[in-house]
Amino acid sequence: MSNQKISDATIKRLPIYLRLLERERFAGKHKTNSNEIAKKLDLTPASVRKDLSLFGDFGHKGVGYNIDSLISKIEEILNLNHFIPVCIVGVGRLGEAIVYHNHFMNRKINIVAAFDKNPDKVGKEIDQIVVQHLDELGEAIKTRQFKIGIICVPPNSAQNVADKMIENGIKNILNFSPVTILVPEDVRVRHTDFGADLHSLAYYLPKEK
Amino acid sequence: MSNQKISDATIKRLPIYLRLLERERFAGKHKTNSNEIAKKLDLTPASVRKDLSLFGDFGHKGVGYNIDSLISKIEEILNLNHFIPVCIVGVGRLGEAIVYHNHFMNRKINIVAAFDKNPDKVGKEIDQIVVQHLDELGEAIKTRQFKIGIICVPPNSAQNVADKMIENGIKNILNFSPVTILVPEDVRVRHTDFGADLHSLAYYLPKEK
Repeated sequence: MSNQKISDATIKRLPIYLRLLERERFAGKHKTNSNEIAKKLDLTPASVRKDLSLFGDFGHKGVGYNIDSLISKIEEILNLNHFIPVCIVGVGRLGEAIVYHNHFMNRKINIVAAFDKNPDKVGKEIDQIVVQHLDELGEAIKTRQFKIGIICVPPNSAQNVADKMIENGIKNILNFSPVTILVPEDVRVRHTDFGADLHSLAYYLPKEK
Repeated sequence: MSNQKISDATIKRLPIYLRLLERERFAGKHKTNSNEIAKKLDLTPASVRKDLSLFGDFGHKGVGYNIDSLISKIEEILNLNHFIPVCIVGVGRLGEAIVYHNHFMNRKINIVAAFDKNPDKVGKEIDQIVVQHLDELGEAIKTRQFKIGIICVPPNSAQNVADKMIENGIKNILNFSPVTILVPEDVRVRHTDFGADLHSLAYYLPKEK
């Protein structure tokens, strides 16, 4: 496994498998199989088998997967068995919603610090996190070792915030600002851009005259 | 163009081109070219040229693109020159943030109705939209002709809401609930799943012992 190159598409699906498996476990199930998983996630059984086989032979033909072992394995692969501190910059309405959402996720990966430059926000408490001034970001990354940074600021500030994060050692960014941020090759960005998603859906509407 | 199959990946990039071009125009520019666009959006010039050439020859070699014409063309392709009414179901913190966000987008595609089943939400006004009870959704889709539905409810209710939307004629869904929804083949879903995005980023962190 360690020498194998796993595609980002597979990596993105792993948390989705994980969530389904946890729901199944919560419902009292112990076993599942690729057909069942595929059906519930709108994938093909072959691609489920392919994704999961990358991590060793923990499915058995005709028997399927043991849900507990599969959960542990995916958690291990995703590093989710360690505490991962995350920071967020920008706690307007959307940023605030993300901080609250965070707690529902019930994982060791957690937003533990929030930054903003708006004086109305700094010092305010959001879900037990006291918002700090943006000027404190660099120092905080160094001392508190945030591993992932979430950007939720207006488009004009997004690149600056990204630069500051990267300069201080963050290599993984989740960007919610509606703008492309440019990063060095060793930094990974996931961009959530629901304005663009909404606009692109419009393409599929019947053309009006 | 009408007979050409355009990939969904290209369609997803069009709103991103559009946003950049509008920013350029706002900054007083009239012309741009594929190199410039590519650099700002972290794409290759060849892929920018390929995307934009799909819609006819409106770039000129050595001259580049006229920003105004390119904006109009992309708006036309994306149907964004018509009013597109959108509804949202689920206005917890995240849903509410999305409704407010909507107004920043400055387009004819707009959230015009919101639904929830929580009595604390029904009747409340969010950015000039009065939240209606979920029971009114089906009737409202029929009479008000919402073209796109946004789902922002807890995972257990997401499939039901999707079914109700589809049953009443919605063919395009933006899903923010952290669960896969199953839809007929002629319905398109975009899934924004930032919990999964965050968890998948953890994969790229240095492994701890």
